[in-house]
Amino acid sequence: MENSHAIILIYCPDRPGLVAAVTDFINVNGGNIVGLEQHVDRQEGTFFMRVEWELSNFVISKEKIGEYFQTLYANKFNMTFQLYFNDYVPKMAVFVSKMSHCLFDILARYTAGEWKVEIPLIISNHEDLRWVAEKFGIEFHVFKVNKNNKDIIEAEQMALLKEKNIDFIVLARYMQIVSDNFIHNYHDKIINIHHSFLPAFVGARPYHAAYERGVKIIGATSHYVTAELDAGPIIEQDVTRISHRDSIQDLVSKGQDLEKIVLSHAIEHHINRRVLVYKNKTILFS
Amino acid sequence: MENSHAIILIYCPDRPGLVAAVTDFINVNGGNIVGLEQHVDRQEGTFFMRVEWELSNFVISKEKIGEYFQTLYANKFNMTFQLYFNDYVPKMAVFVSKMSHCLFDILARYTAGEWKVEIPLIISNHEDLRWVAEKFGIEFHVFKVNKNNKDIIEAEQMALLKEKNIDFIVLARYMQIVSDNFIHNYHDKIINIHHSFLPAFVGARPYHAAYERGVKIIGATSHYVTAELDAGPIIEQDVTRISHRDSIQDLVSKGQDLEKIVLSHAIEHHINRRVLVYKNKTILFS
Amino acid sequence: MENSHAIILIYCPDRPGLVAAVTDFINVNGGNIVGLEQHVDRQEGTFFMRVEWELSNFVISKEKIGEYFQTLYANKFNMTFQLYFNDYVPKMAVFVSKMSHCLFDILARYTAGEWKVEIPLIISNHEDLRWVAEKFGIEFHVFKVNKNNKDIIEAEQMALLKEKNIDFIVLARYMQIVSDNFIHNYHDKIINIHHSFLPAFVGARPYHAAYERGVKIIGATSHYVTAELDAGPIIEQDVTRISHRDSIQDLVSKGQDLEKIVLSHAIEHHINRRVLVYKNKTILFS
Amino acid sequence: MENSHAIILIYCPDRPGLVAAVTDFINVNGGNIVGLEQHVDRQEGTFFMRVEWELSNFVISKEKIGEYFQTLYANKFNMTFQLYFNDYVPKMAVFVSKMSHCLFDILARYTAGEWKVEIPLIISNHEDLRWVAEKFGIEFHVFKVNKNNKDIIEAEQMALLKEKNIDFIVLARYMQIVSDNFIHNYHDKIINIHHSFLPAFVGARPYHAAYERGVKIIGATSHYVTAELDAGPIIEQDVTRISHRDSIQDLVSKGQDLEKIVLSHAIEHHINRRVLVYKNKTILFS
Repeated sequence: MENSHAIILIYCPDRPGLVAAVTDFINVNGGNIVGLEQHVDRQEGTFFMRVEWELSNFVISKEKIGEYFQTLYANKFNMTFQLYFNDYVPKMAVFVSKMSHCLFDILARYTAGEWKVEIPLIISNHEDLRWVAEKFGIEFHVFKVNKNNKDIIEAEQMALLKEKNIDFIVLARYMQIVSDNFIHNYHDKIINIHHSFLPAFVGARPYHAAYERGVKIIGATSHYVTAELDAGPIIEQDVTRISHRDSIQDLVSKGQDLEKIVLSHAIEHHINRRVLVYKNKTILFS
Repeated sequence: MENSHAIILIYCPDRPGLVAAVTDFINVNGGNIVGLEQHVDRQEGTFFMRVEWELSNFVISKEKIGEYFQTLYANKFNMTFQLYFNDYVPKMAVFVSKMSHCLFDILARYTAGEWKVEIPLIISNHEDLRWVAEKFGIEFHVFKVNKNNKDIIEAEQMALLKEKNIDFIVLARYMQIVSDNFIHNYHDKIINIHHSFLPAFVGARPYHAAYERGVKIIGATSHYVTAELDAGPIIEQDVTRISHRDSIQDLVSKGQDLEKIVLSHAIEHHINRRVLVYKNKTILFS
Repeated sequence: MENSHAIILIYCPDRPGLVAAVTDFINVNGGNIVGLEQHVDRQEGTFFMRVEWELSNFVISKEKIGEYFQTLYANKFNMTFQLYFNDYVPKMAVFVSKMSHCLFDILARYTAGEWKVEIPLIISNHEDLRWVAEKFGIEFHVFKVNKNNKDIIEAEQMALLKEKNIDFIVLARYMQIVSDNFIHNYHDKIINIHHSFLPAFVGARPYHAAYERGVKIIGATSHYVTAELDAGPIIEQDVTRISHRDSIQDLVSKGQDLEKIVLSHAIEHHINRRVLVYKNKTILFS
Repeated sequence: MENSHAIILIYCPDRPGLVAAVTDFINVNGGNIVGLEQHVDRQEGTFFMRVEWELSNFVISKEKIGEYFQTLYANKFNMTFQLYFNDYVPKMAVFVSKMSHCLFDILARYTAGEWKVEIPLIISNHEDLRWVAEKFGIEFHVFKVNKNNKDIIEAEQMALLKEKNIDFIVLARYMQIVSDNFIHNYHDKIINIHHSFLPAFVGARPYHAAYERGVKIIGATSHYVTAELDAGPIIEQDVTRISHRDSIQDLVSKGQDLEKIVLSHAIEHHINRRVLVYKNKTILFS
């Protein structure tokens, strides 16, 4: 069996000795570092770090690592940190509407065992993709949202997500805006795919806007959802070349290939604990 | 010696028989078509075409081709057309400020004979790049523009451009906004490079804005200048991947490599008569 | 309902008047050209063309178009041509082994109705992906090929393909080499995906070879299968950037995203009759 | 003035405690780490690291750092290391033949002050680019190499390089093969640009070969020169999309834009001490 690993993501004000302090903590207590990446944002004066280490000979128990690190280092260096263990399998809910391309890409990877994740349920505002969920044996729940029932529906959705112990949510071309309250409950844990190269073409119908503007390249952007529409921290982007020969339908078709790959890569980064959000930007550890 | 070619760029309302009509005109009069590309924008119902043909056995003289085509075809099909000859060497003026990367890329291609173009003069609002112009033996004129003298200065510039028979203008990171009147005199003949993936980050300091937004890809856009800032018809765009490790200075540096290549490609398309502007978009014939 | 269209792909020795002749044939007989692209390979002196036209008012019946074109034009200009009609739905067989990523991408597009194609059967040398075929309600046939039974097995496969009226075959990471005889029966009609940027890393284990060589970019190539391994006409290629941080497993994972997209794009070009094979190269009409 | 920095590149057999040991060495002696990147190649079991630190308060003198590190750490951990200081300006010689695009790109960056490097001389086997060197005020030496005089000429070149204290050599489309002896003198210090996506199209006329093969993407590769032709450690690669419409001359033209950017990026990585060569591959620290 794979060894148990701890992963810590840290940020704090930059100062000398931070790398040595953290690596020392792991080494002297019997941990074996298998990955370390640090970054200093000189403009912000902020230090970022991701360290992953094997726990087999680590003298501090998994339950106590967080407490010890807080007491011995985080307090001293004013660090904010997140601690994960690679043997925990996170639970992910997928929200969809009518388009299947992102959902199929997610489920193909899921069933092929590419990701260490569990998908207990798919939520939609339409019945259209129920057959896909059923093919893959995943619960499918339809919530018919409208202007008047949004609060109630979201409360029901939230109850369901809690019941299933959902850790994070993927909006796989879910064509609804979720409320600030909903976002607040899954802060930096809702991953959206927007079908443009943000910040260009925020909002509805970006392919139509791209066509109108006559751009020569289109893109897709995966980001964490925040209160401001399409303005959250960007996780991943990609682009493809188009020409005057492409109709709006061609843009939609070419864009869908971007969307599904970009979204799946963003999900993978999130699952692998490689994304650290800081001030509406992401540090993407490699 | 290379044979003399005619190049015609056409657009008109779409209807059956357009390709046959135009190719018939060329064939029956002894022209040999060496390149033909057509495109129909179904949304607009508009037909676009570029045809290039050898003139050696063409029975209509160069001076008369435009008149004959207008009378026999353009009137009938409501065509708008531009007629060029490949043995005319267009004259291009380059406007610069302080940064040399685009200018060097242009002059390196120019002196290597890559482009069928003549560069009689370089215009700047600063002395900084005079040495570059002098290295390459090209006239360098400095016009110190400010808020109060813009009209006078532009009139002087225009007089100089007319005197040198300048056909089109390249703003190679010329950090000044040119007036509507100036643009009007060189309609669809002023090529600018903007250091962002338009329409994202219009206006000043796009690399700073890209850094702030936390995008994972930056770009550069070459477009014809119109009255609205950074909103003219896009000729060429390209992008490169960045990461959280890149400082603003890194973005500037990576972006400059995009800017010079994108601008030079746009210039090349323009020189080769491959760009047709229609309703604030370009048809880029290949 | 969509109008019936004819599509003709032509090549012949270049000479003046070819475009006019073909467009004239269509126009005078009441056809409405909706797409035309021509290309001249000056090195070869060969002319290539794809024309698509509406048949609603065309005076020659579908059954007779080929004969008329042969008699009136192809003989005269020494043309080789292929004629298709957009209302015929081609039948495609998919061959797979154990990896599911390409198959899922194909089936996701198929069930979403992206392609005008029918997939009557999937063939494999392993049972592994039967469950996928069954999910999508497609016949799945396993043929256990080995060195001794290859001729017999291929004869059985061929009989099955004929019975199902299969027009073309997709090898979606089918890890077997098909015989020359098999290829001969589906000449320029077997589409393979090779997991490298051909001609680099021909043959087995290209990701291992790429890792060993220390390349900074990997690719995938879709091509028609010919007698020589991995040497057939290339339809589509794409690449992605890698680094020293990527293990062989990372290359496999990043490469699979390329493979599925590149293969699906190649299939789409083939279905849309946009690929013309000439002397081991493809003309890819846009 | 910029502070003095030390940069160390290390590799050694992987084992626990390496990061802690090296960072400890720097921290306890008053150094301030401004950049650290490590990588473990699990297949090889090899550890790689680049650390950069400020020397202003470092208690070990620059002259002694190497000796101390060797004694205290390298011996113990079986480390191979290279030590650099950012206030040393390396000297680079450029070798050219007749094509100017790479040379111009290099000199444009050089005169714009983009690189911390000195270029005391340019060497060629032809007179063609003397005017470029003279424009930029750089010594230009022509050595007419042929089959019979290669040993003598290379000895003369070597003498000149030694006289000018040249640290590394850039072959900017220098169309000559240098001898093993010559390479031996500048081991991992000769940077070449090959005009293909290696390992595809090794050797002469790669654009012709790419055209013949019908690839849909072409590339350029910068690598350190080793005894085997075009087989040295790859530093940087890039690609661009082509189509059947591109003639060999178009490939040359599109390729030149790749070549110059890829070569300049490789030079920049080398100057910034970001390249570590290990077993014919490069670790490219970011």
